[in-house]
Amino acid sequence: MSQPPTERASQRPPRGLFVAFEGGDGAGKSTQVRLLTAALEAAGRSVVVTRQPGGTPLGAEIRQLVMHGGHVSPRAEALLYAADKAHHVDELIRPALESGQDVLTDRYTDSSIAYQGAGRELGPEEIRRLLDWAVGGLFPDLTIVLDVPAEVGRARRGATGQAGEDRIERESDDFHDRVRRHFLDLATAAPERYLVLDGTADPAQLHEQVRAWLRTAGLAL
Amino acid sequence: MSQPPTERASQRPPRGLFVAFEGGDGAGKSTQVRLLTAALEAAGRSVVVTRQPGGTPLGAEIRQLVMHGGHVSPRAEALLYAADKAHHVDELIRPALESGQDVLTDRYTDSSIAYQGAGRELGPEEIRRLLDWAVGGLFPDLTIVLDVPAEVGRARRGATGQAGEDRIERESDDFHDRVRRHFLDLATAAPERYLVLDGTADPAQLHEQVRAWLRTAGLAL
Repeated sequence: MSQPPTERASQRPPRGLFVAFEGGDGAGKSTQVRLLTAALEAAGRSVVVTRQPGGTPLGAEIRQLVMHGGHVSPRAEALLYAADKAHHVDELIRPALESGQDVLTDRYTDSSIAYQGAGRELGPEEIRRLLDWAVGGLFPDLTIVLDVPAEVGRARRGATGQAGEDRIERESDDFHDRVRRHFLDLATAAPERYLVLDGTADPAQLHEQVRAWLRTAGLAL
Repeated sequence: MSQPPTERASQRPPRGLFVAFEGGDGAGKSTQVRLLTAALEAAGRSVVVTRQPGGTPLGAEIRQLVMHGGHVSPRAEALLYAADKAHHVDELIRPALESGQDVLTDRYTDSSIAYQGAGRELGPEEIRRLLDWAVGGLFPDLTIVLDVPAEVGRARRGATGQAGEDRIERESDDFHDRVRRHFLDLATAAPERYLVLDGTADPAQLHEQVRAWLRTAGLAL
């Protein structure tokens, strides 16, 4: 029995799953990335874990420039983050997905829209257009937003003794509140691609909600 | 006698003159920048000489990243150049012009349009929109294009013993020819803002052509 023509035409493996984790600093993204990685690997899948900014060697240098250097003008900051994303997508994310690997990223374009567009008031629509171009239209299958009030994020960062807060972490609670509201607006506008979770809840329970969402989407987890 | 209201309203000095020098590597831009600086200063004007990429400390780090680092994906390269320009305009060019100083820059946005848009085939219109946003709509009063055939530029770079050509200088003559044609197209589209000079001519004669253009534009030189 011959295979259907569409499958014969493409000898490539099925494209991997692309999941982004978003949310303020201290929201618990790393924990959820770790739990989902373990679950996907236990299901026999191959997983690439990465982050923005800084997911490639060039990106790490850009991250250093933006986050720990001197003053950076707001447009320059947005463009540097966009450059990191363009390189990250071209060099790492797209090739991994096309080879059939799943990609989990700690932050993606929504963070830039939230931080540069809403947080710094450059204009979210301008930033969104910039980033659409930077990533060549590649967006996650699912974006998980870990939502915590600004003061919880700040307290968690302090409690874990993260020495030397960077330029963005030092911003006011008001800044972080604007960022948070923007994440919620993005999720409201496209509920089929967003899962908003209460970042103050138990991490194991949150992980179960992520698995449930992915099972609903047809993934055997 | 009182001054006219418009002059009383703004106590700022008149905005300085903004001139960009464009053209392939080895076209003689540095020489013309030097000659025009001397002429403007002899006429009692205050001149700031700068360059893109790399006209600010942040820009110098970006320049290093783009020109001497490892592989950079084409969109990331365009975005890094745009970040350099955004920062350069916000931190240096706009403040200098507003304080009444003239600004001469060795390359500006047209170089990126030519190199990234035409040279690397990303699409000049996309790059132009990106850069318009990056520089917040600030464009030179005059752009001087020093036009030389690609093989002349290459020979000059070799003759002056510029050790270690960078990533862009190593590109093929065909690449440099595409870049050259693009500069000529830009000048044809807006002749009132461009002066195209034959870069193979005598530098002193070229400088006279620049002075003549500026005198026609009302500058006492």
